[in-house]
Amino acid sequence: MTVSPGATLAAIRERKPLVHQITNYVVMNETANATLALGALPVMAHAREEVEEMVALAGALVINIGTLSPHWVDAMLAAGRAANAKGIPVVVDPVGAGATSYRTETAKRLLGEVDVTVLRGNPGEVGTLVGADAEVRGVESISVGGEPAELAREAAKALGVVASVTGPVDHVSDGETVLAVANGHELLAAVTGTGCMSTAITGCFLAAKPDAPLEAAAEALAAFGVAGEDAAAGARGPGSFHAALYDALYGLDPATLDERARVS
Amino acid sequence: MTVSPGATLAAIRERKPLVHQITNYVVMNETANATLALGALPVMAHAREEVEEMVALAGALVINIGTLSPHWVDAMLAAGRAANAKGIPVVVDPVGAGATSYRTETAKRLLGEVDVTVLRGNPGEVGTLVGADAEVRGVESISVGGEPAELAREAAKALGVVASVTGPVDHVSDGETVLAVANGHELLAAVTGTGCMSTAITGCFLAAKPDAPLEAAAEALAAFGVAGEDAAAGARGPGSFHAALYDALYGLDPATLDERARVS
Amino acid sequence: MTVSPGATLAAIRERKPLVHQITNYVVMNETANATLALGALPVMAHAREEVEEMVALAGALVINIGTLSPHWVDAMLAAGRAANAKGIPVVVDPVGAGATSYRTETAKRLLGEVDVTVLRGNPGEVGTLVGADAEVRGVESISVGGEPAELAREAAKALGVVASVTGPVDHVSDGETVLAVANGHELLAAVTGTGCMSTAITGCFLAAKPDAPLEAAAEALAAFGVAGEDAAAGARGPGSFHAALYDALYGLDPATLDERARVS
Repeated sequence: MTVSPGATLAAIRERKPLVHQITNYVVMNETANATLALGALPVMAHAREEVEEMVALAGALVINIGTLSPHWVDAMLAAGRAANAKGIPVVVDPVGAGATSYRTETAKRLLGEVDVTVLRGNPGEVGTLVGADAEVRGVESISVGGEPAELAREAAKALGVVASVTGPVDHVSDGETVLAVANGHELLAAVTGTGCMSTAITGCFLAAKPDAPLEAAAEALAAFGVAGEDAAAGARGPGSFHAALYDALYGLDPATLDERARVS
Repeated sequence: MTVSPGATLAAIRERKPLVHQITNYVVMNETANATLALGALPVMAHAREEVEEMVALAGALVINIGTLSPHWVDAMLAAGRAANAKGIPVVVDPVGAGATSYRTETAKRLLGEVDVTVLRGNPGEVGTLVGADAEVRGVESISVGGEPAELAREAAKALGVVASVTGPVDHVSDGETVLAVANGHELLAAVTGTGCMSTAITGCFLAAKPDAPLEAAAEALAAFGVAGEDAAAGARGPGSFHAALYDALYGLDPATLDERARVS
Repeated sequence: MTVSPGATLAAIRERKPLVHQITNYVVMNETANATLALGALPVMAHAREEVEEMVALAGALVINIGTLSPHWVDAMLAAGRAANAKGIPVVVDPVGAGATSYRTETAKRLLGEVDVTVLRGNPGEVGTLVGADAEVRGVESISVGGEPAELAREAAKALGVVASVTGPVDHVSDGETVLAVANGHELLAAVTGTGCMSTAITGCFLAAKPDAPLEAAAEALAAFGVAGEDAAAGARGPGSFHAALYDALYGLDPATLDERARVS
């Protein structure tokens, strides 16, 4: 299996997979718009009454714990189990794990009770979940011991997932191989929810390439990073950058994406 | 009663009606901003504890089932009945009806227990509610049997509402007359929540013209479509289009709107 | 203590305080982005299960009642008490107080059970809470008897808070001194949530200057108003203004802010 974000992007635009997202209140509009701009179809549904039926229509399930409460956790677990039963890939974003025990415990429950395909988080969040010496303040990764490439590899092994650890350089690992992705722009850190968007886009790529989650996760981050680079070109700050980010996702060119992707 | 989006828009801007919206988490900010940019006043309130009191202050009630849960359904029904008791027009947007039985059943309950003035949906959603052969994936209309003009007429008759069925050309019917609205732009489909915005704007027009819901609903779609055309003029993609859409709603000129509206 | 929005802004950017926000669904993304663009770190968390732990990490707590429900009220009260116990400043935004009794009563409960540092609202909301002859329609202040400077002074005295009453000119008082802030732009009223953003930014300034809430609250409004003036420069309407507002907050220059601030 090769890494080709361009080919997978072309497949997303052709098939338009439905990506079911159970995500936080802060970024719902943003991750839906990023999904749509990329070329997939988002659907947000969080009621226990409908998540199992909804996820059965989807090509991937995205679970994001950014604004938790007990009813939402129940629905996340139910949707995750239903996705597993149908063989639908599941991405989990453990937003703020390490900041409060409720978030840490919920992320651990999800990893324990659902077969998670890709775990996408920052170093502090992922470090927390593998017992590393990590500090998370709110939803920001403050510090984590060790090298990020090693953290990705260890998390993948320990948790039985593809670990996708984002930062200035992203590292994606299945426990053996580590792919480093060096695309992106610093303005991504000045807009809330760009991490959550990268998780949603990981869901889109997984839906189009479910049999190669390592490659799909790395491709997603490369594509999102290239869009960030394009959006930064004319931006005057985080507001104009944010609007331009959807333009850039919409305008991503499958024909040139592979050569612009900095995956190693 | 004549169709004059310009005259109704002028009335909205003069009277600034309050439009009470019980809508989904994904688009709350967007429909509030669209309402405000047009010239009306939005208020979002969903607690059972206050919806009846809030709706009594409003010129129209907008109910949108995009992200449902049981407490919200209770509040929607209570607000709808309170609006009925006061003679306040009610718009319902059955987002995702047909995708899950929870959405389909909730839309049917609303139509059964509340006297709905306008039902605004896509062909798949409206088709589902009249028992047509419709397919809805997530919140997208995939297919529906028959002609959209006939679907609008049949839905209006069967459900006792003004049916406002949007698509490349929109069709609005009271069961007898069918008005077709041919304004809009394809970028509207690349931004999440534009359907929900058209529903909110339908609420604004109804608040200003409560005695002519057929005309008000068609005028709303024409005004929103013209704004979409203006927004597309300088847009580089869905992000810049989205920002420009509020500029365009704010800049809509009542004096030229009637001649730009393509209602037949 | 002197009024220097530039010095406090520089402190915010250096220390990057965490600002815990329990706010409404409509504006969560917007207040998070405003916080981040200014230079502080936002975190949104509303579950009873985690608010006390989360607020303990924060430099300020922002409570906004824009879309209430009972579970949220419980969490607001618990977070407020936990903030009090730790000496963390608390800002309350009584969105829509006066429109429904649920909102009015909840605002009063917060003021009664939590030691509120700054109350930031419009004249109708603040007037309602001190028993003035005020009218609120939805979340808009329609009218209030008396002068706004006097209203701020009286509210501060009666409620034991710093009262921050925003309008064409803002008035901030601790019950003795009244500071008037004359920055801003009329387009701020055409975008939903700008009042909520000013509350969030008040939280940022309080986190950096907790011992001088009168000055911090006035500085926050001056900084936000200057950003509004900058954003309006190239705006074509509320959509482009909204995007430019984050650019302007990000670009605020501590070195020139004091001379641009119109505080008297």
